[in-house]
Order: sequence, then C-alpha cells, then structure tokens
Amino acid sequence: MKFVYSFNEGSKDMRSLLGGKGANLAEMTKIGLPVPFGFTVTTEACNKYYEENKTIADEIVDEIHEKMAELENVTGKKFGDTENPLLVSVRSGSVFSMPGMMDTILNLGLNDETVITLSNLTDNERFAYDSYRRFIQMFGDVVMEIPKSEFDAIFDGQKEKAGAEFDVDLTAEDLKAVIVEYKALVKKFMGREFPQEPGEQLMEAIQAVFRSWNNDRAILYRKLNNISDKLGTAVNVQAMVFGNMGDTSGTGVAFTRNPATGENALFGEFLVNAQGEDVVAGIRTPKPIKEMAVSFPDVYKDFERIADVLEKHYKDMQDMEFTVERNKLYMLQTRAAKRTAVSAVKIAVDMVGEDLISKETAVSRIDPNQIDQLLHPNFDEKAEAEAEVLAKGLPASPGAATGRIYFTASDAEAAVANGEKAILVRQETSPEDLAGMVAAEGILTARGGMTSHAAVVARGMGKCCVAGCSEIAVSESEKTLTIKDDVYKEGDYVSLNGSKGIVYKGEIKTVAPEFSGDFGTVMSWADEIRSLKVRANADNPRDAKQAVEFGAQGIGLCRTEHMFFEEERIPAIRQMIMAETEEERRAALAKLLPFQKSDFKAIYEVMEDKPVTIRLLDPPLHEFLPHTEEDTRELAEQTGISYAKLSQIAEELSEFNPMLGHRGCRLAVTYPEIAEMQTRAIIEAAVEVKQEKGFDIIPEIMIPLVGMESEIADVKATVEKTIGTCLGEYGVEMEYLIGTMIEVPRAALTAGSIAKEAEFFSFGTNDLTQMTFGFSRDDTGKMIKEYMDKGILADDPFQTIDQEGVGSLMEHAVKQGKQTRPNIKLGICGEHGGDPRSIEFCHKIGLHYVSCSPFRVPIARIAAAQAAIKEKIAD
Amino acid sequence: MKFVYSFNEGSKDMRSLLGGKGANLAEMTKIGLPVPFGFTVTTEACNKYYEENKTIADEIVDEIHEKMAELENVTGKKFGDTENPLLVSVRSGSVFSMPGMMDTILNLGLNDETVITLSNLTDNERFAYDSYRRFIQMFGDVVMEIPKSEFDAIFDGQKEKAGAEFDVDLTAEDLKAVIVEYKALVKKFMGREFPQEPGEQLMEAIQAVFRSWNNDRAILYRKLNNISDKLGTAVNVQAMVFGNMGDTSGTGVAFTRNPATGENALFGEFLVNAQGEDVVAGIRTPKPIKEMAVSFPDVYKDFERIADVLEKHYKDMQDMEFTVERNKLYMLQTRAAKRTAVSAVKIAVDMVGEDLISKETAVSRIDPNQIDQLLHPNFDEKAEAEAEVLAKGLPASPGAATGRIYFTASDAEAAVANGEKAILVRQETSPEDLAGMVAAEGILTARGGMTSHAAVVARGMGKCCVAGCSEIAVSESEKTLTIKDDVYKEGDYVSLNGSKGIVYKGEIKTVAPEFSGDFGTVMSWADEIRSLKVRANADNPRDAKQAVEFGAQGIGLCRTEHMFFEEERIPAIRQMIMAETEEERRAALAKLLPFQKSDFKAIYEVMEDKPVTIRLLDPPLHEFLPHTEEDTRELAEQTGISYAKLSQIAEELSEFNPMLGHRGCRLAVTYPEIAEMQTRAIIEAAVEVKQEKGFDIIPEIMIPLVGMESEIADVKATVEKTIGTCLGEYGVEMEYLIGTMIEVPRAALTAGSIAKEAEFFSFGTNDLTQMTFGFSRDDTGKMIKEYMDKGILADDPFQTIDQEGVGSLMEHAVKQGKQTRPNIKLGICGEHGGDPRSIEFCHKIGLHYVSCSPFRVPIARIAAAQAAIKEKIAD
Repeated sequence: MKFVYSFNEGSKDMRSLLGGKGANLAEMTKIGLPVPFGFTVTTEACNKYYEENKTIADEIVDEIHEKMAELENVTGKKFGDTENPLLVSVRSGSVFSMPGMMDTILNLGLNDETVITLSNLTDNERFAYDSYRRFIQMFGDVVMEIPKSEFDAIFDGQKEKAGAEFDVDLTAEDLKAVIVEYKALVKKFMGREFPQEPGEQLMEAIQAVFRSWNNDRAILYRKLNNISDKLGTAVNVQAMVFGNMGDTSGTGVAFTRNPATGENALFGEFLVNAQGEDVVAGIRTPKPIKEMAVSFPDVYKDFERIADVLEKHYKDMQDMEFTVERNKLYMLQTRAAKRTAVSAVKIAVDMVGEDLISKETAVSRIDPNQIDQLLHPNFDEKAEAEAEVLAKGLPASPGAATGRIYFTASDAEAAVANGEKAILVRQETSPEDLAGMVAAEGILTARGGMTSHAAVVARGMGKCCVAGCSEIAVSESEKTLTIKDDVYKEGDYVSLNGSKGIVYKGEIKTVAPEFSGDFGTVMSWADEIRSLKVRANADNPRDAKQAVEFGAQGIGLCRTEHMFFEEERIPAIRQMIMAETEEERRAALAKLLPFQKSDFKAIYEVMEDKPVTIRLLDPPLHEFLPHTEEDTRELAEQTGISYAKLSQIAEELSEFNPMLGHRGCRLAVTYPEIAEMQTRAIIEAAVEVKQEKGFDIIPEIMIPLVGMESEIADVKATVEKTIGTCLGEYGVEMEYLIGTMIEVPRAALTAGSIAKEAEFFSFGTNDLTQMTFGFSRDDTGKMIKEYMDKGILADDPFQTIDQEGVGSLMEHAVKQGKQTRPNIKLGICGEHGGDPRSIEFCHKIGLHYVSCSPFRVPIARIAAAQAAIKEKIAD
Repeated sequence: MKFVYSFNEGSKDMRSLLGGKGANLAEMTKIGLPVPFGFTVTTEACNKYYEENKTIADEIVDEIHEKMAELENVTGKKFGDTENPLLVSVRSGSVFSMPGMMDTILNLGLNDETVITLSNLTDNERFAYDSYRRFIQMFGDVVMEIPKSEFDAIFDGQKEKAGAEFDVDLTAEDLKAVIVEYKALVKKFMGREFPQEPGEQLMEAIQAVFRSWNNDRAILYRKLNNISDKLGTAVNVQAMVFGNMGDTSGTGVAFTRNPATGENALFGEFLVNAQGEDVVAGIRTPKPIKEMAVSFPDVYKDFERIADVLEKHYKDMQDMEFTVERNKLYMLQTRAAKRTAVSAVKIAVDMVGEDLISKETAVSRIDPNQIDQLLHPNFDEKAEAEAEVLAKGLPASPGAATGRIYFTASDAEAAVANGEKAILVRQETSPEDLAGMVAAEGILTARGGMTSHAAVVARGMGKCCVAGCSEIAVSESEKTLTIKDDVYKEGDYVSLNGSKGIVYKGEIKTVAPEFSGDFGTVMSWADEIRSLKVRANADNPRDAKQAVEFGAQGIGLCRTEHMFFEEERIPAIRQMIMAETEEERRAALAKLLPFQKSDFKAIYEVMEDKPVTIRLLDPPLHEFLPHTEEDTRELAEQTGISYAKLSQIAEELSEFNPMLGHRGCRLAVTYPEIAEMQTRAIIEAAVEVKQEKGFDIIPEIMIPLVGMESEIADVKATVEKTIGTCLGEYGVEMEYLIGTMIEVPRAALTAGSIAKEAEFFSFGTNDLTQMTFGFSRDDTGKMIKEYMDKGILADDPFQTIDQEGVGSLMEHAVKQGKQTRPNIKLGICGEHGGDPRSIEFCHKIGLHYVSCSPFRVPIARIAAAQAAIKEKIAD
C-alpha cells in the first residue's frame, strides 16, 4: 500500500485518493505543465491516522521522508539549509472543497536561521520577517490551536508601540520584536519552544490537516451536505515559489473565458512583485491579465498556451492560479470556474460548437438555480452598485423593480392606470390585494416569509417581491413607510432587488431579460434529454399563457379559490357561506357557475390539448369573509344581513389551526353542492371548448386534502354523478381523470388504499412538509432560519424536499400507489416542483411530472434533464 | 360438500359455517334441549350463491328440499297443508351479529288457504289475518324490496277508514281488506301475484337473506368493523311455535343471572298467550319470570333446569328466548348476555369461585370501557329517570354531579369554601380556571369538544364534565345560563351526567362509587396476567396520589406547563416571556426554579421508587399571556410595561397555526435557558428526595415535539450539560434517562436516527393523530362526527388509534427505534393510552407501557391483561 504520491505519480482521475487539489496538481505535472514539484499524502493515510488512534504510522512517516528527499533532489534545495533552504506550502485537499478545514500553511521550513537566508535571497528583510511572523502565527493557530486573539493582541500592541496605522507600516525591526513575543506566547501555551526543525514542523502540519478533517465545523458541513466521514482529506506538500522576488516576479489569477459574459478570451488579474496574500490585502490594485503581455511578453505567451491546453484538456472553463518567479511561470492550481448564468449558457453552447463537449455535458454544466437570472428584469449593474441600500428583507421573488410607492392595491392600480410605475407596499398582502399586485412593478411587505401570500403570488406572476422586511414600518392608514428615522410617503421612489431582498432609495434603471438564442438552444437540448414532464401551476389564462411560453407541458395545479376572490364573485361566495339551507347555498353557487365555467374555458383555450389538473375548492370558508370590522360592516350593508349575524358566522367559522381545519375535501363532504358546481363548470367548459375548437381535452379533477380512502370515495361519488348528469345533458362522451393531492401524511401512508379510488396522485409537498414536520410555514420562518444557522436543518424544507422524512413518505406512496394501480399518474405540485434538487428526487422516485410556477418552468426543464443525465451516468 | 345442516347435525363450534344463531340452535338440540326442529343453510352456500352469479346451485336446492321433507316428518306437519300446515321462520345468522342484514320472516308458509287453517287452529281470526298481513308486508319489504312506505300508506289508510286509533283497533275484517290491497301493491310492483306456494316463498326468502349480506349498510358495517366480506351469512329455517295459543301458551326472555347486579338467580320477563312481537308492541306489561312458577309450575321447573344446563354448558351467563306452546317449552335462542359493569365483575368473580371459568376467562369477560362506571359517583337511577332534561352536550368526563351554578372560577371556589356544592359553568375553560375546576363538583361548558381544555382536565381529575353543550347560552358577565327561553342564575341548582352528556334541572341524589372486593379481585388477576405496564399522566401530587391508588406503576407524562399557570407563578412566566435579553430571561427563570423544584419534590415523594417522566415546556409562549384587553391592561399596571408594548409582544408571538408553531423542543432550541432551569429543578428535586427519603429515583426527562435527530441532539446537549453541573454541585452520581415524545410524523419516520439520541420514546398520539390526519382537534370535532355518521370514519381517531395510518407510523418507529437501540424504553402518553382497543394495539407492537389519566388506570390494567390473553390464545 502506497500512502504518498509525488506529483508525477498521480492524475486527475485519482481525486478520491489525492483530493481535488492534489489530483489537479498531478494532472498538470503529468501533461508537462510547469508546477512546483511536491507530493500528496493520500486520503487513505488520513483514514489510517484515525484508525490508529491519531498517529501517523511509521511506514507513512518513512514514505514522507523519502518524498521529501526526492523533493530536495528535484529542487536542489534542502530543508533547513542556510544557503539554499527548501520552503514548502502545506495545504489540505479533500475530494469536495470544505469550509472549516485547515487551509494553507505557507513558508514552512522557516526558522531563526533560514529567515536570514530568505532575507538575503529576496533582498527584502521586511518580507522575510513578515513571512516568518505569519508562519509562526498560522502554525500557532492551526497546528497548535493557540487562540488567534492572543497573536492579534501582540501584533496590535506592537503596532501601537510603533505608532503604525497599517500592518505595512511595521518595519523589519518591529516584526522581529513581534516574533520574539510570538515565540514566548507559544512557549507559554505549549510548554515548549516553537519548533525550529523543519522536519518536525512538517509532520506537525500534516497531523494538523488530518485533525482538521474532524473538527466541529467540518463534521457539521459534511453532515449538512451528506458527505461521508470516511472520505478523509489529502495533504499537499509543495515547494514554495515566490512572486515577490522583484520586478521579474509576480502572481495572478485567471479564467480561460470571461466568467461574466462567457466571451472566449482570457480573463483575470495579475500583480508584479507580489504574493497571493498581497492581492487579498488590497494594498495594490491588480492589473488586467492582458497587461502581462507587456510586462512579461514571453511568460504571457506561455500562459496563454497553458490556459488553452488546460481548457482543452479538462473540456471546461478553468480558474487558474499562477506565480512568476524570476520570469519563470509556475502553475499553482487549476479548477473548473464558477460563472454567471449568461456566461454558463454561452460557454455551454460554444463548447458544443467547438466539439469540446456533448449536449449532455453542456446541459449538466448549467446551474438551474441561476436560470432565474435570465427570466427577469435586472438592474443595471453599475447603477445598482451606486444606489443607497435602505433595508434588507427576504428575496421572495426574483427580478428588479423600480417605481413610486403605494400603500393600497387600489392606489397602486390607479397610479398604474395614470401611466406611473408603482411599487405596492403592504404590511402583508391578502388575496384582496391581487389586482394591485398585478398592476405593480414590484411588491414590498414588512411581514411574512418566503411562502407568505405575497411571496407565493409574486413568484407565480414572475413579479419582483421583497417580503418580510422587518426593518421597515408600514402605516397603511397614514400611507407612510418608515425606515429607521426616515419617512417615505406615497409617491416616493424606491427600487427592489427581489433576487437579493434589497430595498434601494430612488429610481434605478432596469434591464429587460433577453431570451438569447443560446438560451433557447440549451433548453431544447434539455427537452431532448429529460423524461420527467414539466407542468405549471396556473390559476388563470394569463399565467397559463406565460407557462406555455416557458415550455410548460400542461397545468399541474389550477387552484379554483383564487378565482373566487375577484370583485364580482366574492359577494356570491359570501352569500354561499352565509346560506343557512342547502337551497340558499345552491342559489349562491348557481351564480358562481358561469364565472367558473368561463374561467375554465379560457384556460382550456390557452392550453389546447395539454392536460389541465383542476383542484376543487381547498381553503377554509372563513378565508372568504371580510377580516376587519369595517369590511364586515360594509358587507352587512350590502347584504342586509345584520352585523351581529355576520360576526356570529365569522366566529363560528373561525379556527384555532385553520391549516388543520375544515378545508379541502372536507368541504366537499360537508357541502357536496360546492363540488357539484365546480365539477359542472369543469365539464361544461371542457365539452364546449372541445366542441368549439376541437381540442382533445381530458379534464383532470383533483380532490384536495384527502387522508382516507373512504373520504375520496365519498367526494368522487359526488363528482362522478355530476359528470354523468352533465355529459348526459350534452349527449356526449368524454374521458376524464379523478385523482387526489397527497398532502396529508396519512394519505401517503395509506396510498395503496387511496389509489383504489384515485387515478392520479399529485404530491402537495407544501402541506405535506408542514404536517410531516409540524411546521406552520406562516409561523416558523424565523425559527427555520435559526435552525439553519445552528446547523439543525441543512436546508429549508419548504424549499428543498426533506428526503429523509417527507421524501420517505413520497417514496412509500409512489410504491404503494403503483402496486394498486400500475398506470397511476404521478406528479408534484408543491413549490418543490421548481427546486432542482427536489426535481432530481422526483425523477429518482419515478414521478411522471413536476408542476411549478410558470417562471420556474425553464429551471425545471434543465433540472429534469440533469436528473436524467445523472441517472444515465449512475447506471 | 354439504350445504344444509339439520339442527341435530351441528354444534356450537360450527359458528363460522352455521352462523352464531344456527350454531347455538344446533348445540341446544345436541344437548337434548327442546328446540323447534329446523335446519341451517350454511355460510358456504351464501358464498357459492355469490360465486355463481347470485343463483342458488341445484345441489343446494335439492338439499333444502330434503331437509324440508325431514322437517315435515319430524313435526308431522306439511308445507301448505290445509289441515296441519307447517309454518316456518326464516332468519339470517352471520358469524357476527350485523345490523342492516335481513333479520326475520315469521309465519312463512301462510297463504290464502293456510291462513284459514291457522285461524281455526288458534281460534283467533284476527291473529291469523294479522300474521298473514305482517308476513306479506315483511316479505314484500325484505324479499321484494317494495318501499315500506307503500305498505304503511295502505295500512294507515285502512286505519283512517275504520276510525282506528291504534293498530290493535283494526278488526279481522279490516285486516282482510288490508291484505287485498297489499296483494294489489305486490302485483303492481312485481308484475306478478304474491307467491301462494310455500316452497316458492321459502326459496325467495333464502335468496333475500343471501342478498342482504351485500346490501350497502351491511358492507359499510363490515368495512367499519374490519369483518371480511368472505364470511357470508347462514340462513336458519325453523318450525314456528306459537305462544299465543291461549292461556297454556306464552313467551319470554330471561337471563341466567341478574344482568344489572350479577346476583346468581334467574332474571327475566314473560307474557301469557303472546308472541314475541306483542312484547315489543308494549300493549301488555310482561311479568317477572318468577311468576311463571305460578302460571306454569312444571314448565318453570323445566326452564330453571334448562337455564342451569345452558350456563354450565356455555360457562357464561346466557340471554335466552323461549316460547311455551300449549304447556310445552321451546327454546328459540341462547347467547352470552350483556351486563353492567357491576354485574360483570361480580359474575366473573363468582364463576371463578364456582370453578366454572379460569381467571383469564374472568378477566377477558370484563368490558374495560364499562369499568369507568365503577370509579365515579353516579346518580340514583330512579331519581335520574324522573329528572327534567335541560340540554344535551358531549359526555366529556364521566360521573355525576349536582350543585349550584357559578360562572367564574373564583365564585365557584368561594361557594365551595362556604360549604356549598358548585357546578362551574363557562363558555369554555382556560388554564386560569383550574382552581375553580378543582373546587367544583362538575364542569359545564358551551363550547369545545371531547379534547377541549375542560374535557381533558376534567377527565384527568376524574371530575364530571359536560362540554360543548351548544344548546346553552352562557353569559359570564351577567352570570346567567340560558336554555331556550329559560334563564338560570348564579346559585340555581343543576345536575350533570358526564357519562351521557346530559344537563338536568335541579338537584339529583348521587351515589358514591364503591370499590367492592370483587373489583379488587378482578384487578389483581389482571395484574398477574398483563405484561404491559400502566402509568398515569399526572402533573401534580394530587393526581399522582390518585394514580397510585388506582394502581399506576409510574408517571408517563408529567406536564410542566400546568404548574406555570398557578397564580403565584404566572407573573414570573410572563416576565420571562417579556424579557428582551437572555439575562432578563434568566432572572425570571430563577424565580420559577424554586416553584418547579418543590413541585417535582412533592411528586417524587408520592411516587417513591416508581419512574416519573417529566416533559420539558411544550406550549407556545403566547398561551401564558393574557387573552383579553382587560387582562392585558391589568398586567401592564402590575409590571409597569406599557399596554402598547405588551400588545406588541402578544402580536409578535401570535401564530396562525399554534399547533404547528414555536413550541415543544423548538422553545428549548431558541431559549436553552428554559430547558436549563427545568432540568435543574428536576435533578435537584430528585437528588434531594433521594437523600431525604432514600427512594431510588431515576429521573426521565422528556423532550417534546422532536422531529429531527439534530434537534434532540441540540436540546439534549443543553440538558446533559446542566445535569453535569447540578450533580457536580451536589457531589453525587445519579442515573437518568433522556428521551423524546414521538408526536410529529417526521419523528416516527426517522425514529431510527432519533433513537441514537433518545433513550426512550413516548408516543404522543394526540398530536401525532392531529398531524397525520391534518385534523386540528380544536376545530374538527363537528366534522369528525359528520364523518362518523357518514361512515367515512369508523372511529374517532382521537379516541382509538387509527391503526392503518397513525398506527403504521408507530409500528415503523418501534421497529426502527429498537434496531438502533435494542433496550429503548417504549411507551405512549396520548389519551389513547387509556383506550382499550388502542392498548391492545400498543401491546401488539411491543410497547412497554401505556400512560393514561389516573381514572383510566384501572381500565388500562384490564385492557392490558386482555391483550395478553388474546395474544396467548392466538399463539
């Protein structure tokens, strides 16, 4: 068994043994690129270290010594030598990059003697002693675990003593004084001197890297990201090169293409006579990489060549680090580069054009979450950078918006009718604000989380929204918005960045989204690859149209209740609620029928042959009643029903936990006439649109909140009887499907029985998550954030399906459902239907489609394709 | 294969083939008792009938004919004979008695000719024609499925025509007219004459019984009661005997012992010259069975002997039907008799004494739900029967109470202090009413369901409560109770029957419960038999004491929040809630510590060595804030915190769905200092009581509402750290257990992970049911009732564990929990812990204990024993 590999012994395929960094260093060495020589202690050595009670086995120590000798040979330098000392960097390198682990120790090999040599060699005493000081500090911190603050106190003390404002104001003599104190500190803490022997320094540093694999933050990170504790970390030991050996030296970072635009040209920065740290320190401004062509013409030519080699070799845009030591170029790192959505799309399409990668690879390189950036207006970057931030809230719905603030839906509507751009500002929105939300450019609320009404509706409309902005105080009566001590009045300008959750002062120029040709190309590739269908959640023709434009293959969830809130309908709804007899209720429902029917007709006309799943009424009836005394009094006047009577009805209907109350199919059990009216509207609309337009419509009627077979059987009987009557009246036949949401844990648990009645399941993962966790999403937003901060939750379960809990219920339901009814249709219509990781899970457990808000349809198409690609690779 | 059995061919062990009734008729025949001869068509014939598309196979028809011939032979009568006609009864007889199935057709064999013979033989023309009329009506209804209302219309028409007030006022001539019209009705509906041929009547009746096996009501009943559709029903055909052939005939019903008291003496009623139906008609008052000794001395002696034979034979109290035809006794039915709790206990103990049955049989004969009757005061039966019913509500907590009504807790307390008996009447109760509830004899509320605060707390205290009595209007401000138009004022007497949910006017004498020797004997047998331990839910020393008296083996759930509501503590709790910094919160908690500690000490002192599981704070903090503006203003005055500030805090803490909000362990995550204080109180109390009294206390600390391993890990770390500190301060060691409730579906689903941290699981099936069904128990009471009425739910899932849904989660959790931690301690502390069917389920899935309210402990002990017996039999 071999535990240590020289860079010329490995390759990029040995990532699991050498870690990401080590494998790439080996690969670059292998293909003949100039990499300072070194070696990698493997992840298996790390595992062995833990198996043997945190000691490095003798055989590994021996191997390290051999490799060090080889390194001395290759470099012609010697560890601890006072003439030509070998200095090395020690870096951790796990398979996945992992915060919390020991990162880097530079200049290892320095001691009281070699520091003098370094000073002479670089002709820079200050640099040498600063390096030594940093080395002791870094070693003391990460190897010896001496609190950083102790070192800081000494350093700051010296600065004060010397009257130095900045670190760089300290002289070599000052730094020597710091070193004396640092060493005293080490002695005090460790009971021994700072190790002067480079070999000892090295072994301690390697052990420290191994130890850092199991520190709390690293363990937590692995837990949260499902990374096995068994992977272990590698350690890279590499000869130091110096970019700060005068004007013939330098250091830089570069990308093979432009990570912002995707342009196929080198992009990056470099600094003459500097080390990486100097760039970070920000004392000098780096120069664009192109200028290297002037300062280091030969080196630059070489670097261009290497960049090209690396990109062709890795078949992806590279992010590279390099150092020039006395006109010689050294590559210190290469890895796949991060990129913006625009550049990701362009690079993917370009590289397929260059025959560098396949369409599958191109699609799998797109981060689906980034796609969102391409679908919404954004601020002009420069203008946004200069704008004044007023407050931060939740990034509830992406995009950018600018306009005058209005505090009621009707004010916003009126302003827009006058040709203004409006931002609707509310404490929180309710369904009654819908028209104002449609009219406004963006929505800002002081309360409510990522799944509040404002957030959900705005996302559905693709409208920019900042929600739960607790820093602002909204007075809807006085029509003012107060932030700290500043008061903003109706008509004042603000701007919102819904992707970041920021409220800016004043107007900022927005840039409209461009659906470039590259974007369309990538999407069409995704559609070729994926097997999971993508539908949209859409409640009206406008959203349905938007969804189809974004490529939706049907509607997975058409909520009927949103239609009920519109101005001309709400009186009939309320009349129905206040009915004391079935007859009165039927009379009110009869008024609603034509509205519902015409809504459904309009949706069917947009969707043509595509499937449309319509859900029967879901929310508790009290949601439709006025919420304030004022509105109740108004309703009393309108209806002639006394205020007292109305209050009594509201009181009777009020619930302690409406989430778990009289809603969903429970309404249809109690008031079958509601389900009858809705069924009639669905069927009549379908029959008529089919007759008028010839579309092949197969209505899908979805019964919500089912928990028992007997429950769906009851409602299904009502629905089927109505369908029979309806079709009889038209004298036609029509196929249809009746199915259910799986959103109550019991429905998932007993899915085998429920599938006897249900022809399709649609997972309502919002409610399923609420009930499985016992988290009311209206109430636990703050708590969930706290849980994520504490590492109790890795992800917000309302954004990404909790696979261990909620996901296990889904898997169970899919299995049982298919067992009972092999051809059962399976989908998801919770918001998770637009989340890439959740989509991958849906693909894996065998759903047939996901349904998400229209603006997430493109994201879902990419994510679905990626899931298919992953599965193919895994096979 | 044989499909028809004469009564002399079967036995009681052939129940599944012959049905319950047929098997017992055969058994009586077999042991030589006088049973009118007959035969049983088997359940397999019924199944074959369905297999062969609802036709009776020829071979079965042949067998029936053979058996009819034998019956004619034995009786010396002939079907359709005009001299000595054979008349038979046809009765269904399934394995389990089942409502909705065809019950009985009497006098089959009557037609236009034999009715004349019957008239002559009985010398009672009216009787004969009434029998014929009833036969046509019954046959028309159940065999021909002609609507009953059609027959009723004819009959009522005739009554009107004849000027008859009662049925009996109709003469033979009137009845003949009715028969003519009945036959016309049959002709109209069926297109054929009413069948005159007895053989045809018989085959049609048998088919009708078979058909009734699959009518909607029967199917629903089987579904609800988990009875297989495959069992089928048998049909019993038996020669008629007549109790109405003059003064030497009669009919009666009797029990071998007294079903009310258990006294070992014949108990029953009989009627001379009558048929069973006459008893039902209520025209004549039956006489006590003993008087038969006078009217029929020989027959009575014979009956006494037969009763004795039957009881010894069946080894159980029998419920018998008999007819005397011309001084000859015929047994028509025998079966195990229903009995009251008192008699059940006495009979069980007596029969063991008589060496008739084993202790296991004795215990399994007690209906655990009835035990409750023995533990509470009851009304004097006669006084209750005469009392005026004012209203009906929910039977929220059993027992009887009488007293003067008071409308506030403090008024009730004051009245009791003055020596009065008080009934506390409230709109609904809240924790602040606790002292008044303790003082009152009983509690009456207008709102709230079986699991409302009033109901839960009253059951816990074993106090009579009628809840959710929507017929009453309570004005707490005016201190009046209005029922319809009657107003009752403070101090007026009412009486409550909490077992039935009835409110009576005035005082009714109550009878205190007697824990008779027999009761103790049966309970001790149950304890010998059961393996499942029984603990109690008790929050204070009073309840703990009661629980121990009822035989509890520990406390399975000690809720700490109830202690918080007491007058001297609530200010500190509120101070804690209103704290803006951790320091302020800690200061408030420090005030609570001595209270909590002394509570726990008192409980430990009562419980001695028995285990006590204490649950950390569970409810959301807003529950502790005042609910009305008035109370909030009072608090503002008390604390000096402004009303506006208090309102703001209340607003911030308020939740849309508190059930699923910031509560349970989520509080301990956010405010670890609360868990620290409670842990300290628990440990300090345990250490001190152990030192002072020498009890071997092992505290069990329960973390509520856990849904994730990481969540319990977080809270457990806080708890363990505090325990370490505490024990260090005392300088002692102490064993302890830390565990969790399993009450969130996700906890059950991921129990395997959670068991890594939890040393015990206690199933909180109240919340688990709420979240698994998505039923808020505060909001869905009415709906659940509707579901039960419609047959959508067989049982209220808050009373009996829903085994298919909630139960499957429990089973999963038990399995996974044991896999991770084989010695994990498993219990249940939801209210289901006191429900016999749920207890059987808990035994089956391998829980170690159930915990229920003190007054259900005896019930649980019996139910646990019965579960063990059932399992033993099944093995």
